[in-house]
Amino acid sequence: MAAVAVAKARKWSETAMLVIDMQKEFILPGRRLHVPGSSSIVPSVITAVSTARDRGIPVIWVVREHDPYGRDVEFFRRHLYEDGNGPIRKGSDGVDLVDGLSVEDGEYRLVKTRFSAFFETHLNTVLHSIGIKNLVIVGVQTPNCIRQTVFDAVSLDYQQITVITDATAAATLEIHNANILDMKNVGVVAVELQDWIDLQN
Amino acid sequence: MAAVAVAKARKWSETAMLVIDMQKEFILPGRRLHVPGSSSIVPSVITAVSTARDRGIPVIWVVREHDPYGRDVEFFRRHLYEDGNGPIRKGSDGVDLVDGLSVEDGEYRLVKTRFSAFFETHLNTVLHSIGIKNLVIVGVQTPNCIRQTVFDAVSLDYQQITVITDATAAATLEIHNANILDMKNVGVVAVELQDWIDLQN
Repeated sequence: MAAVAVAKARKWSETAMLVIDMQKEFILPGRRLHVPGSSSIVPSVITAVSTARDRGIPVIWVVREHDPYGRDVEFFRRHLYEDGNGPIRKGSDGVDLVDGLSVEDGEYRLVKTRFSAFFETHLNTVLHSIGIKNLVIVGVQTPNCIRQTVFDAVSLDYQQITVITDATAAATLEIHNANILDMKNVGVVAVELQDWIDLQN
Repeated sequence: MAAVAVAKARKWSETAMLVIDMQKEFILPGRRLHVPGSSSIVPSVITAVSTARDRGIPVIWVVREHDPYGRDVEFFRRHLYEDGNGPIRKGSDGVDLVDGLSVEDGEYRLVKTRFSAFFETHLNTVLHSIGIKNLVIVGVQTPNCIRQTVFDAVSLDYQQITVITDATAAATLEIHNANILDMKNVGVVAVELQDWIDLQN
């Protein structure tokens, strides 16, 4: 058993999973920043995270948390913050992960303020410091935070970047598929969850 | 009165104050990361912040908060985190501001993981978005977080960068003075607190 565990750990030791924006504000219907179609991927994300943990893959929770006045939000969204009561503001329940997902002891939580998890954050330095070369990405939403994170990861020379296609989502399936295609065209591995689970088991 | 208030607001409207690392872990004697000489500047920092607020200058609280395992701390300090109990870790009281200082409603708090407040943070974007061109800097410690922040601010083309010499501190006065001199030599305005208070009143 120990030998198997060591072998598994070695195989996945240079891989991290990024779980992006799986927060109530984006996932729950009726919220101001709700991403249509996102609720349906929650079970897949839960399974993906569980699989990562079983493999010893570090799970990095990338989340948004904004200033109530929107001083750190994109300009096109800033009108939502005029009253000091903007969405996904720090301390509000919209910031919380959806039910079924939680940061386990020892897992890393990182706040971003733009689409890419690498934009003006220390994510790349943290991943570098723990020896990560490969990324597996789940969460929302495909054309914005998923794609921008992926393109930055390509630019930052991560070696294998995997997007789990049924653990990511966009407002429509057409948008989702169009963005998955663009990412495949820059070398990204796009796989369904079950195929990723079955991979080299 | 209203005309005076408007005039004051206009005069300082492009200036922000950065209060750097005024946290218990650095300021209180006996803490692992205590900066000798830092306790004595607390009253000056309190007065500087109060003066900034009176002038309508936004106060930005720059603080450290680290992963308990040190995955986001400088490599030279990482040995302090081997037991998952590292200093100034998120959630510990070392992260708190020292008594007498607090983040008021509407003020911005920004977490950094390296010396410079600009290193892998969204500080520059936030300051740009609220129209800031000039900075006034207080806190600890002069050769590290103060100086690196100041040099980055110079590189980022902030127009007037003021360091309040008796509201900043280092392990020794010699180190402090040597660094103040280096900063003056790149165009930084170094003033004592009382002179800053008297400035154009």
